[in-house]
Amino acid sequence: MSSLAAKRGTMSSILSHNAYGKSGVRLTKVTRHPDRHDFKEITVNIQLEGDFAESYTDGDNSRVVATDSMRNTVYVLASEHPVEDIESFGLVLAKHFLDKYEQVSSSAVHISESLWHRINVGGKAHPHSFVSAGNEKRTATVYADRDLVEVESGIENLVVAKTTDSKFSGFVRDEFTTLADADDRIFATAMEITWIYLSPPADFNKAYDLIRQTALKVFATHMSLAVQQTLNEIGEAVLKAVPEVAEITIAMPNQHRLTFNLEPLGKKNKNEIFYPVDEPFGLITGTLKRT
Amino acid sequence: MSSLAAKRGTMSSILSHNAYGKSGVRLTKVTRHPDRHDFKEITVNIQLEGDFAESYTDGDNSRVVATDSMRNTVYVLASEHPVEDIESFGLVLAKHFLDKYEQVSSSAVHISESLWHRINVGGKAHPHSFVSAGNEKRTATVYADRDLVEVESGIENLVVAKTTDSKFSGFVRDEFTTLADADDRIFATAMEITWIYLSPPADFNKAYDLIRQTALKVFATHMSLAVQQTLNEIGEAVLKAVPEVAEITIAMPNQHRLTFNLEPLGKKNKNEIFYPVDEPFGLITGTLKRT
Amino acid sequence: MSSLAAKRGTMSSILSHNAYGKSGVRLTKVTRHPDRHDFKEITVNIQLEGDFAESYTDGDNSRVVATDSMRNTVYVLASEHPVEDIESFGLVLAKHFLDKYEQVSSSAVHISESLWHRINVGGKAHPHSFVSAGNEKRTATVYADRDLVEVESGIENLVVAKTTDSKFSGFVRDEFTTLADADDRIFATAMEITWIYLSPPADFNKAYDLIRQTALKVFATHMSLAVQQTLNEIGEAVLKAVPEVAEITIAMPNQHRLTFNLEPLGKKNKNEIFYPVDEPFGLITGTLKRT
Amino acid sequence: MSSLAAKRGTMSSILSHNAYGKSGVRLTKVTRHPDRHDFKEITVNIQLEGDFAESYTDGDNSRVVATDSMRNTVYVLASEHPVEDIESFGLVLAKHFLDKYEQVSSSAVHISESLWHRINVGGKAHPHSFVSAGNEKRTATVYADRDLVEVESGIENLVVAKTTDSKFSGFVRDEFTTLADADDRIFATAMEITWIYLSPPADFNKAYDLIRQTALKVFATHMSLAVQQTLNEIGEAVLKAVPEVAEITIAMPNQHRLTFNLEPLGKKNKNEIFYPVDEPFGLITGTLKRT
Repeated sequence: MSSLAAKRGTMSSILSHNAYGKSGVRLTKVTRHPDRHDFKEITVNIQLEGDFAESYTDGDNSRVVATDSMRNTVYVLASEHPVEDIESFGLVLAKHFLDKYEQVSSSAVHISESLWHRINVGGKAHPHSFVSAGNEKRTATVYADRDLVEVESGIENLVVAKTTDSKFSGFVRDEFTTLADADDRIFATAMEITWIYLSPPADFNKAYDLIRQTALKVFATHMSLAVQQTLNEIGEAVLKAVPEVAEITIAMPNQHRLTFNLEPLGKKNKNEIFYPVDEPFGLITGTLKRT
Repeated sequence: MSSLAAKRGTMSSILSHNAYGKSGVRLTKVTRHPDRHDFKEITVNIQLEGDFAESYTDGDNSRVVATDSMRNTVYVLASEHPVEDIESFGLVLAKHFLDKYEQVSSSAVHISESLWHRINVGGKAHPHSFVSAGNEKRTATVYADRDLVEVESGIENLVVAKTTDSKFSGFVRDEFTTLADADDRIFATAMEITWIYLSPPADFNKAYDLIRQTALKVFATHMSLAVQQTLNEIGEAVLKAVPEVAEITIAMPNQHRLTFNLEPLGKKNKNEIFYPVDEPFGLITGTLKRT
Repeated sequence: MSSLAAKRGTMSSILSHNAYGKSGVRLTKVTRHPDRHDFKEITVNIQLEGDFAESYTDGDNSRVVATDSMRNTVYVLASEHPVEDIESFGLVLAKHFLDKYEQVSSSAVHISESLWHRINVGGKAHPHSFVSAGNEKRTATVYADRDLVEVESGIENLVVAKTTDSKFSGFVRDEFTTLADADDRIFATAMEITWIYLSPPADFNKAYDLIRQTALKVFATHMSLAVQQTLNEIGEAVLKAVPEVAEITIAMPNQHRLTFNLEPLGKKNKNEIFYPVDEPFGLITGTLKRT
Repeated sequence: MSSLAAKRGTMSSILSHNAYGKSGVRLTKVTRHPDRHDFKEITVNIQLEGDFAESYTDGDNSRVVATDSMRNTVYVLASEHPVEDIESFGLVLAKHFLDKYEQVSSSAVHISESLWHRINVGGKAHPHSFVSAGNEKRTATVYADRDLVEVESGIENLVVAKTTDSKFSGFVRDEFTTLADADDRIFATAMEITWIYLSPPADFNKAYDLIRQTALKVFATHMSLAVQQTLNEIGEAVLKAVPEVAEITIAMPNQHRLTFNLEPLGKKNKNEIFYPVDEPFGLITGTLKRT
């Protein structure tokens, strides 16, 4: 028994869980087709679990795959893989760590993709020049262990607003309530949507496109009686549109645009003049499952 | 059966989980003692679960407590409560929503405190003037349902660095490895520490102070063979120092300071000149439990 | 002579410049046309100069227009003005403070517009639903004093990238140089463009559209021998395209995508695998004037 | 005449100003004394002006010092220089570019220092372990051309608050005014202070410490009739305390803590319960000069 172990023997604690990995591995891949270049920019986070306790308890790193080596692995595998969709590349990465290192019991790979549009020049998409599509991200998380592989895809920061067809009334009214019923309010949010695939779709990119388009369409056209109701309607529509989706989770921060009170200033506000506030915000979440 | 319900009857999905609440409720409380003012600044997030499905499925808000009312509740209860520590105020809030609304099955209240020091004037702490203690936060999360109340406290963004007594060697070396063994490296991190109380301590503020001080002391004085080992040592020391702590979880991003290679520039780097990189970063986590 | 003035009489300093105002006034204006809603979101900063020294030196606020009143003014004037372009609204605001308050000698109004696209539903732009166009901003700064009015318009954070047609070689090579010549590199930047109008164009929105489109087109199609050269080419093209522009200033951070060295890992990098770094970055600026 | 020059000959524009450089060069320097380590972390921005127009107009880079070489220069010079204060290191850097490259007409070097405290272990400052002092920065900007060298030092983000001894009344009251007079309000701000030295002080670190301490002391103890007045008082006190300072500029955002209206909720607010708002904020600035 080492002296360290002896010391610990008298301690009243155990390491009940541990994990480690590399976060923020940023990759740009350019694929040079004859007629156009593809330009993919992703950020990869890797977390491994397994037989690593001795690094914690004794500083014995003999089973530790350095996080620097994980970073190298991302670039090596990206040079061998087309990286056409983040789900497929996430699968390659997650399986790699399990296959290569017996001490790994599970790996979780999260990929966040920065989105770019081709620049439009004279009505045509330019073959090698791009403009940022903003702060919305496409995401994928692949979890793999010795028994199971699960793919969760997502959209982060899908920022939308509608200027009418949103009401909120009939809620609990008691001594803590000052909010008036709203018959016609602005509804603005930054949706975060994640979904778990029952089975891989034929094309991850097409499934993503369809889900994003479905969410936007329902948001635009739905008569909303509550943020909750719009959330549910989007979830139902996605489950209907993409049969491979087993489950969908949506978070909707309610990014308030408050009516500016012009009355003390001698004016009427004809539901035209608002001020956005970042905080506080309502946060509504829900998960829908295929039955 | 309403027409909405009829429509949903043909859908193949159910709302399997839902929650909602108010986030980012910012409160400043000034307590005016005869000899000094106390100045407390916190941000509160509230999430409720319960019997709210009809708001999602039918837009029926009759059981919905408006998130605006939750905001009001924070200010009303803060005017009645001393807010001397965030754990006690979190307990008051979490219990309030359960006691007041029968449709609530659980409430989770997260509080993040911005920290201030009194300004030192002529060697004395000023009675009513303060300077920010930076971006480190003290946190508390209280979860309460009809059976259980749990208090988790924490420290976010405890940014520390040491210029020696940190090594990392003996890790897996294979075709993905380029990192050299490090005999004497800079170790910098922004710790996130959370702990769950078995039972409330006599004084939440004193327990917090002792845990913060213990983490800093171990970080400063420990000879580190791996980030993992330092994490474990801090966890053990906290469990030893504060008997009311049942479990502690620590996350340590490894905020690398890389040695700048001066050789191509005709100079030697005597372990003095480094450059910090934000990304990628190693992320090491672990949970220790009292046995 | 007041006692404060007496005290200052013995001081060896004067207040040589002062200004004040309100920043971060956020406004949402919805204009409800019969067939569609317009949705405008702007943030206004106001700074006034004038006869305000006594507030600084004596705490005498009798000539001070409270910044809270400036905020009110933004909302009142927005309710009376169409806010169809930020330049026109900036002009209204800047002139208002001069006209209304004789103690004001100059006013500077900066407006930053968050951009939204209409959601596309079934191939048609939706009449009242919008999706964020990202973090790019349209800006306007109107400066007005008793003699002069100047309008500067701009684009902030126009994030673009091209995967080829960018070189950089032939630069100074000395003992501080390690950078190799680049024959074919990625060129990525977040342009900040501002221009000063000689005279107002017929339509500020059309001028803005044309300038943005011109910048994108030149960036996409130009064979770049240096970031500097691309910057100059864009400036020349804009001055050519929009005769009302007197002067244009462009800042181009060089957001490096560095080639990942796969050789130590036994692979070749066929100019495909890169990693973005945020820091450090080159920063290139230039101003072009019509002669 | 080159074809490029010929093309430009027909253009009606000239490059009226240009500058370029490297921003965000992050440096960590460890100085290993026998009894303690010093730990300095700075970020350097460099901008050069000079004879660089041909890179813009022709893509001729023969006079261009690559920004990558500027980055190298920071690390090389830091290995030769003690970096004990950022002003001295800034002077070395600014002069270097002028001395080394005849095509440079001026150089501006901005340095921002992240501040660290030694960790307190058992009442003693630890010799090699540090905790972040937060988001406040110490800054220096050195401008040098062939005739002149100027040093401007500063403090960024000095976040302070006081709970009493702040009033604001007697301001202009008209149809745009809704703000009430305030007899006793919270005053919170994030000061940005910069000062220009007439001549270098004996010790830049001591001058900085004294200026910071003076600003804090005046803020803490001053009875404020307006943010403007407090700003002026701090400026006067600094000019009095440090004779080498020629001029001081202070910016004070008024980070409002608004009184929460408890009356509709059946409670009284005894000047105790507030909510901070980030936007909008008053922004007050002033410059004081030694006469």
